Amino acid sequence: MKVEVKETERIDDLHRNGYQIIQDPKRFCFGVDAVLLSGFAQAKKGEKVIDLGTGTGIIPILMEAKTEGEHFTGLEIQSESAEMAKRSVSFNDLDEKIDVVCGDIKEADKLFKAGTFDVVTSNPPYMNDGGGLKNDYGPKAIARHELLCSLDDVVKAASWLLRFGGRFYMVHRPHRLADIICTLREHKLEPKRIRFVQPYADREPNMVLIEASNGGKSMVKVMPPLIIYKEDGTYTEETIEIYYK
Amino acid sequence: MKVEVKETERIDDLHRNGYQIIQDPKRFCFGVDAVLLSGFAQAKKGEKVIDLGTGTGIIPILMEAKTEGEHFTGLEIQSESAEMAKRSVSFNDLDEKIDVVCGDIKEADKLFKAGTFDVVTSNPPYMNDGGGLKNDYGPKAIARHELLCSLDDVVKAASWLLRFGGRFYMVHRPHRLADIICTLREHKLEPKRIRFVQPYADREPNMVLIEASNGGKSMVKVMPPLIIYKEDGTYTEETIEIYYK
Repeated sequence: MKVEVKETERIDDLHRNGYQIIQDPKRFCFGVDAVLLSGFAQAKKGEKVIDLGTGTGIIPILMEAKTEGEHFTGLEIQSESAEMAKRSVSFNDLDEKIDVVCGDIKEADKLFKAGTFDVVTSNPPYMNDGGGLKNDYGPKAIARHELLCSLDDVVKAASWLLRFGGRFYMVHRPHRLADIICTLREHKLEPKRIRFVQPYADREPNMVLIEASNGGKSMVKVMPPLIIYKEDGTYTEETIEIYYK
Repeated sequence: MKVEVKETERIDDLHRNGYQIIQDPKRFCFGVDAVLLSGFAQAKKGEKVIDLGTGTGIIPILMEAKTEGEHFTGLEIQSESAEMAKRSVSFNDLDEKIDVVCGDIKEADKLFKAGTFDVVTSNPPYMNDGGGLKNDYGPKAIARHELLCSLDDVVKAASWLLRFGGRFYMVHRPHRLADIICTLREHKLEPKRIRFVQPYADREPNMVLIEASNGGKSMVKVMPPLIIYKEDGTYTEETIEIYYK
């Protein structure tokens, strides 16, 4: 399929099924967090998945390659990003498997019926520092800071979108852990599995992967940490597995 | 000081200041969790500390040795345990530094004025499995299961006892993490520092150490995990440090 690639954009290889993604370094390029989330999240045969704040569509595209999920939707508020994601979907010939919807997470209840999805994923903005950034509504600021949606907005939408027993997967920052857990519970999502991500074995984690279930009893499994680099600075086996295998 | 030691009891060396502790294996002997909590908790010069559910008094005795805290109180509901803890305190000649009070955590607001303490510690019962154990109210069951007090009772008491800005230190099980964090917040204790304890580097954690502050903003530091054993089954340097140095 012929897909336009603009002058400021580049095409990156995803090392999965030969898939590639269109990115614009002036906007926002996906990071290790999106890749790790796509390795942590599970979508089973026949399941419908939605990614909240999908940006370039990296998470649906990687999950289409890695899981047996039936269909994927990416919801993105920024029209330029959504349009770029749509082109990446077409570029990989995935139009039958992945929809990109341009819309606001805060209006999820108007865009979709309750309980439409088996799985919700999200790599939301991490920072709730507000201030300082008031005048920067560029794509990088929107992706990183809670400018257009808060943690509460994302979790509330996930709770609406998930069927009973459905699963929400999110990557976030460890310093928000108490906010994350309490916000999930407020919206009837019960944390079930948590994995901290450490750059090195002896360093504190800089990311956290979390799975919550819509309903279910209180009992969370904290997994061994995921370590990104060995002491010598090369990737650990598990990181290589997530990225390339 | 002459202190009675009963026939079923034994005296164990604590490897700290020459301190020893009286334990009765038929009742309950302290575990690695109490020792780790005494290494995680901090009491500064001049601070007053209370330990909720002190059992044999292990935590106040170890913290008296390890920290600069001014005075320690151990609250224990089981009169036999409280009496044994009192004898251990006398045995180590610590009657001026450590009080043992026999009383119920659920009545902390009748026993002490609000905000009396700078620091609260607790190694509470971990299991909220209820059922099955209904007829066993022996000392081991009381120490392990939420029979005489729940997590909510312990946190509520801690919140009452702490001055504004005071610190609560607890050791618990990772599978209760969501309960722990939400219960702390319900009682205005904000999680500030979390450390998971793993038996080995590649195993999931089986304990969690948590520090919460009475008041303060939402921002938690997740530390690198504490690893107990090296691959060869010997203690890590850090475990040795906590136990013996």
